[in-house]
Amino acid sequence: MRVIHSPVQAEHTYRHEVVSGLPVPAYEVPARAAAIRDALERDGRHRLAEPRGWGLGPILAVHDADLVGYLEGAWAEWVASGRAARRTAIVPDTFLLAGYRGAMGEASRPVAPEGRIGYWCFDTMTPLMEGTYRAARAAVDVAVEVAEAVLDGERAAYGLCRPPGHHAARGMFGGYCYLNNAAIAAEWLVRRSRMRVGILDVDVHHGNGTQAIFYERADVAYASLHSDPQRLYPYFSGSAEETGEGPGLGATLNVPLAMGTDDDAYLMALERAVDWLLDRTDGPLVVSLGLDTFEQDPLGDLAITHDGFRRCGELVAGAGRPLVIVQEGGYAVAGLGEAARQWLAGVDARAAAHRPE
Amino acid sequence: MRVIHSPVQAEHTYRHEVVSGLPVPAYEVPARAAAIRDALERDGRHRLAEPRGWGLGPILAVHDADLVGYLEGAWAEWVASGRAARRTAIVPDTFLLAGYRGAMGEASRPVAPEGRIGYWCFDTMTPLMEGTYRAARAAVDVAVEVAEAVLDGERAAYGLCRPPGHHAARGMFGGYCYLNNAAIAAEWLVRRSRMRVGILDVDVHHGNGTQAIFYERADVAYASLHSDPQRLYPYFSGSAEETGEGPGLGATLNVPLAMGTDDDAYLMALERAVDWLLDRTDGPLVVSLGLDTFEQDPLGDLAITHDGFRRCGELVAGAGRPLVIVQEGGYAVAGLGEAARQWLAGVDARAAAHRPE
Repeated sequence: MRVIHSPVQAEHTYRHEVVSGLPVPAYEVPARAAAIRDALERDGRHRLAEPRGWGLGPILAVHDADLVGYLEGAWAEWVASGRAARRTAIVPDTFLLAGYRGAMGEASRPVAPEGRIGYWCFDTMTPLMEGTYRAARAAVDVAVEVAEAVLDGERAAYGLCRPPGHHAARGMFGGYCYLNNAAIAAEWLVRRSRMRVGILDVDVHHGNGTQAIFYERADVAYASLHSDPQRLYPYFSGSAEETGEGPGLGATLNVPLAMGTDDDAYLMALERAVDWLLDRTDGPLVVSLGLDTFEQDPLGDLAITHDGFRRCGELVAGAGRPLVIVQEGGYAVAGLGEAARQWLAGVDARAAAHRPE
Repeated sequence: MRVIHSPVQAEHTYRHEVVSGLPVPAYEVPARAAAIRDALERDGRHRLAEPRGWGLGPILAVHDADLVGYLEGAWAEWVASGRAARRTAIVPDTFLLAGYRGAMGEASRPVAPEGRIGYWCFDTMTPLMEGTYRAARAAVDVAVEVAEAVLDGERAAYGLCRPPGHHAARGMFGGYCYLNNAAIAAEWLVRRSRMRVGILDVDVHHGNGTQAIFYERADVAYASLHSDPQRLYPYFSGSAEETGEGPGLGATLNVPLAMGTDDDAYLMALERAVDWLLDRTDGPLVVSLGLDTFEQDPLGDLAITHDGFRRCGELVAGAGRPLVIVQEGGYAVAGLGEAARQWLAGVDARAAAHRPE
């Protein structure tokens, strides 16, 4: 399989994230991507390559230009203000909550750097620093390159995106995500193929950003399997009651899963989600491939095994649609490379079985 | 002057708050209230007393019952879930940002304790713990007791409220504030007196909660002098363009001040705000007495002196309206008692000058 990755992504690196008010060692680290790349290289069946630069076009098709401008300039602004001497990453402490009043409109857009990040970012786990924007841009290039490969005829291609993307919305970032790689790829596919595109989000966390971007759209169907947000991040979305709005009503499917869901139960839910997507789309599927459903993941609470990941890959490839697979979460670094390798091996096995002789 | 305080307020105490992602020693500490009480006791001209219990009635006249229920039960819920062993205070890390989508309605109200606090709280500086709710309730009792004293004929009375209140809105808390003592006192005065009440907020930070509570009301006028939110917390509100809405249009006045504003410049702005309030109200004035305008305050950036505070008290008392004075911020503990003592001495001096012989 064609595997796209970018060394620039490793420029985004930080030591700590803030969880419930205390700094803890960061989970979203460059070692994640390195582990996957190493496993895929060792596997020997993949062709690794770097992406071309795709510019801002695909990004601005999905994200608010002001958010992108903020992400691009925030670190330089932080340094210029002298704050970098005290804080080597920008982490918000004050947030423009939905309940905040008298804060709308241009007049009250925050000016202070501490306020600016709290206008755009919704958590304390997604710091902005020196290399963040470059890495996020590289991850988008990876995703678009994968989409292009599929448009050019590949049955499936994989983008080793890092940072991940599915928590980033049109005008909001968080959850380790800055730009929504999967949503950008999906939008790219819609515009280039004129077909209805499906997004299958198998990260253990609900992809609130992707859902929000396409919530009122009929041409992109979004299906997500995730730990019930009543237990897990991001808490505020991902219930089965959320099914889209307006023209998008019925084009969102959320499947909250019970704690400890194992391979067999997961595969049943996955099959249902894939069937649901096939009914509503005719174009490629974008897979938001979170591997934090893994039984050893420190942030997830499901129980998928390496064998389960292979079966998932087989099942999804069995749908027969071209697959644009982009990496999302997955934090058990020791088992992560093998998890990705198995998932993609499942895809390849199925694709080989289906290949006309 | 009658001074109301409650020892229960000291039950709210924590060591650290989280600023830009790092724990720093807490600013909003019991020593603040102790310093003020000691200074007023030493002064000898004040009558200190504790409040009666006023129950939930005055609180529910201002706050969302669900917020109050959350504040009451959150710590027990945290303990029952086993989380207190890891985190001795509840600090949000994930926030229901205004830009968060698909999160409205009962279906997606968060259930996990980490999500619940991020639904109600807008910053990382306002932890919830064991004694928080009791202390916040005691602070409200102090404020209502002061309002009652004024309704009973006192020309001015002072409530040594802690935690402060003016950042708490109807359904949102933050900024060291849980329940809005000043807003509750103002609402109490409106209902009991049937007069139009003014709120003069002289805390160095914009009182976004108080503004929000009365933003569409004509019977309560809100005037705030504060450091420009383009520089200082809470960042998202407090610009001069915010003047109220609907029936409340024109009943909000924000006066953002330049860095380093000194006594003379401050008093000119204060006189303007007091005149503005006198034009729009006929009842008592509630003073949100933040003393973080002090030249040595670690969180403020204005330059008011102890002498300036005395002049402020004189000016406000010179308006001739009954004064319900409730404590808000002020974090230079060493100079805080004297700041409060001077402000109240100014009030007393003016009241004495005006007293008919």
